[in-house]
Amino acid sequence: MANNKTDIVMKSGLQVDKELLENISHLLEIGADKSILNILRDLHPADIAEIINNLNLDNAEKLFSLLDTETASDVLPELDENQREFILKKIDKKTITDIVDELKTDDATDIVSELPENVAEHVLDNIDKEDSEDVKKLLKYPEDSAGGIMTSDFVFVHESGTVKDAIKEVRKHAEEFDQIYHIYVLTDDEKLVGIVQLKSLLTNPLHKRIKSIMEKDLIYVTPDIDQEEVANIMDKYDLVAIPVVDKNRVMLGRITIDDIIEVIQEEASEDLQKIAGLSEEQESSDSIFQISRIRLPWLLMVLILEIINGLLLSTFQATIQQQITATFFIPVIMAIGGSSGNQAAVVMVRSLALGEVLHSKTLKRLLKELGVALLNGIACAIIILLATQLVFSSNEVPLSFSLLLSGTLLIIISYATLFGASIPLILKRFGIDPAVAASPLVSTANDIFGLLIYFSLVTLFYTA
Amino acid sequence: MANNKTDIVMKSGLQVDKELLENISHLLEIGADKSILNILRDLHPADIAEIINNLNLDNAEKLFSLLDTETASDVLPELDENQREFILKKIDKKTITDIVDELKTDDATDIVSELPENVAEHVLDNIDKEDSEDVKKLLKYPEDSAGGIMTSDFVFVHESGTVKDAIKEVRKHAEEFDQIYHIYVLTDDEKLVGIVQLKSLLTNPLHKRIKSIMEKDLIYVTPDIDQEEVANIMDKYDLVAIPVVDKNRVMLGRITIDDIIEVIQEEASEDLQKIAGLSEEQESSDSIFQISRIRLPWLLMVLILEIINGLLLSTFQATIQQQITATFFIPVIMAIGGSSGNQAAVVMVRSLALGEVLHSKTLKRLLKELGVALLNGIACAIIILLATQLVFSSNEVPLSFSLLLSGTLLIIISYATLFGASIPLILKRFGIDPAVAASPLVSTANDIFGLLIYFSLVTLFYTA
Repeated sequence: MANNKTDIVMKSGLQVDKELLENISHLLEIGADKSILNILRDLHPADIAEIINNLNLDNAEKLFSLLDTETASDVLPELDENQREFILKKIDKKTITDIVDELKTDDATDIVSELPENVAEHVLDNIDKEDSEDVKKLLKYPEDSAGGIMTSDFVFVHESGTVKDAIKEVRKHAEEFDQIYHIYVLTDDEKLVGIVQLKSLLTNPLHKRIKSIMEKDLIYVTPDIDQEEVANIMDKYDLVAIPVVDKNRVMLGRITIDDIIEVIQEEASEDLQKIAGLSEEQESSDSIFQISRIRLPWLLMVLILEIINGLLLSTFQATIQQQITATFFIPVIMAIGGSSGNQAAVVMVRSLALGEVLHSKTLKRLLKELGVALLNGIACAIIILLATQLVFSSNEVPLSFSLLLSGTLLIIISYATLFGASIPLILKRFGIDPAVAASPLVSTANDIFGLLIYFSLVTLFYTA
Repeated sequence: MANNKTDIVMKSGLQVDKELLENISHLLEIGADKSILNILRDLHPADIAEIINNLNLDNAEKLFSLLDTETASDVLPELDENQREFILKKIDKKTITDIVDELKTDDATDIVSELPENVAEHVLDNIDKEDSEDVKKLLKYPEDSAGGIMTSDFVFVHESGTVKDAIKEVRKHAEEFDQIYHIYVLTDDEKLVGIVQLKSLLTNPLHKRIKSIMEKDLIYVTPDIDQEEVANIMDKYDLVAIPVVDKNRVMLGRITIDDIIEVIQEEASEDLQKIAGLSEEQESSDSIFQISRIRLPWLLMVLILEIINGLLLSTFQATIQQQITATFFIPVIMAIGGSSGNQAAVVMVRSLALGEVLHSKTLKRLLKELGVALLNGIACAIIILLATQLVFSSNEVPLSFSLLLSGTLLIIISYATLFGASIPLILKRFGIDPAVAASPLVSTANDIFGLLIYFSLVTLFYTA
């Protein structure tokens, strides 16, 4: 874990810390715009974004409005949702048009999709025409697909060209694109046929044909591919950019690694959220009501399911009355069923996310889970047998009850593990995010089945 | 989620699927080495690695031994731990020396650190001398620090040089390095003073001084920085490579984005593991016993804590006997306490991992958590009041008991939320990974305190 930031040197040595934030808030309150601009001039746009993300909404908007168009266009895509939403609501049509005009088409698409319809239309009518066409196309792809995260800005050269032509293209776009990694080689009808690394332009003579130096082994995706899949491919093949092509291999755009890192972070957060029972990502500037709205739905679902569990227990009232001891071990049954089910579910969810399970056999995998469950079940059964006999008095927990408890634990661990491992597979087959399987929903279901098994067995053996 | 791989085109159109795996296994069994090499020739090293990761250990070793040195050096760093460990045990000194000689120094360091001491010594004595020195230096850094993941291979030019000199350097290293993103500009005593993008070499005249075109705003890290922090910096500033320098700014190496993606994936997995109560990452080739060893420790801890919980409940035996109804709601108390605590813990763990909480005030944050808890607590309290009155018969659950249940739930949600949000902060202060707070450990602790509060209140009100 990160412990300090003192050894990271930023653009100017300035760091975004509490002091800087308080300083800027103060300067904003007293309207000392010049002093603020003096501070911001030395900062990286990502740092300015971090500052804005940590200000209250009014100050965030005030600070943003001080930025020149170019800086504003660098900062805007990096803002948290709350801040961005608020700023986009306040900003006038002309300013936002100028800012969007500076953006790469993928960022432009994200911003335009967040604008009110009439503002979006105004922006699309007034930015560079070609960009506007591109953005309109990009808007049509689902947000979490390759098409939804690609940019249509890329440097290309026709296959008939030379190294010199390619260098000319790089020069033409050098200002516009922050980072150029590859030149894409296209046929006359825009089909992708090769890739040239920038370093190859430096190591080959100017008159050399592009065709003779390009790499022909291409890894590309179509726009419908899920962003998580794109992330897995770029991770596997160590790519910094991947071309996106249509079914005829016509070049549509490219996805760069910085966007993929965001995808990976996002997907990891999403998995964690589901497992923790959060309905969406919580941001540091969210209000108490917003946070409540994120957490309450799952809490209520758990509550209702556990009330049903209570109803179920009430049907065993006679058993409980006869065998009070049984109630002492409700927590053991619930926690062990929940834990073993969750372990299996999380491992399976992770495997699916990384694309691992595709190649191994499902049945074999489930049998392995059963093996693990039996092994761990036996271990837990032995421990509870010993513990209850040693720790509780023998009239509180007789040997026969300890044995019953042991057996129940073995059954529940086996059942919960298989349940936890299967649900992600089933959800995936039905097109539902498997991570839901690791959520409180499943461990609550495990509680109900676990206690049902437990009290049925107790009833069977003790209330004849 | 990823649903199919049919639209991703690999090097040759060949895909690593069940059929290919079975085919290769078969060819390995009958010793048809030539046919195998024919298949492998068209595959990307990452695909060969994927195949090996999905073979049993003996076949994995057999396949690996068929690879030429260059391919082997591309494949080895991509292998899963089990496969790599087994292969490194079987491989002879000369072969592994040749392979390591081909590796970038960061990968070489990883491999050497996994070799038995005498083999490692032999390798270090026989590879390129300069590389050997570098690897020895790299071996000294902790595995999860910037030093532990950096490579000491980089392209640099002295500040007195020209664009022509820089291009010469690129040419010299073009073969050796897969990807060159930047040229680092160093002083005569090796201090980092600037960075030149490859595209700048294409857009500036050959005689131009490097000093006049380099970027002087540097973002770099020192080797002691935690790898997760490096990931956050590279993510924030959208970097594909970051230089690592010592305290005097002397250039030591660089970290590339592909290694950072692995870090991000690893850290996300680690967080998930802790939350699920897994002691380490589970690999698809792990045996039942290995998986058991990963899962059992947490399961046993939960078991023992919940047996203690059982002991605690047994002290309330008199209360339970008098008020059987109370036992029906043990699941509600446990699940709601656990869920609300977990929600708060996971959000806090994630905030800490992303470095968010550093700037906001801790007390303010905890007060916000309390606000959320009260809001959600009131909602849950109302629901359980209504539900128990409507669903259960009034002699089973009298109004007074429903009210008691309501109040208890409000207390428990408040307490568990604060508990869940505080523990990560406390753990971090003591240098322990905050993610432990989201593990079953804490929700089990919540069970114990929750039930203690619940049965104390029941005892107070119903057994006067």
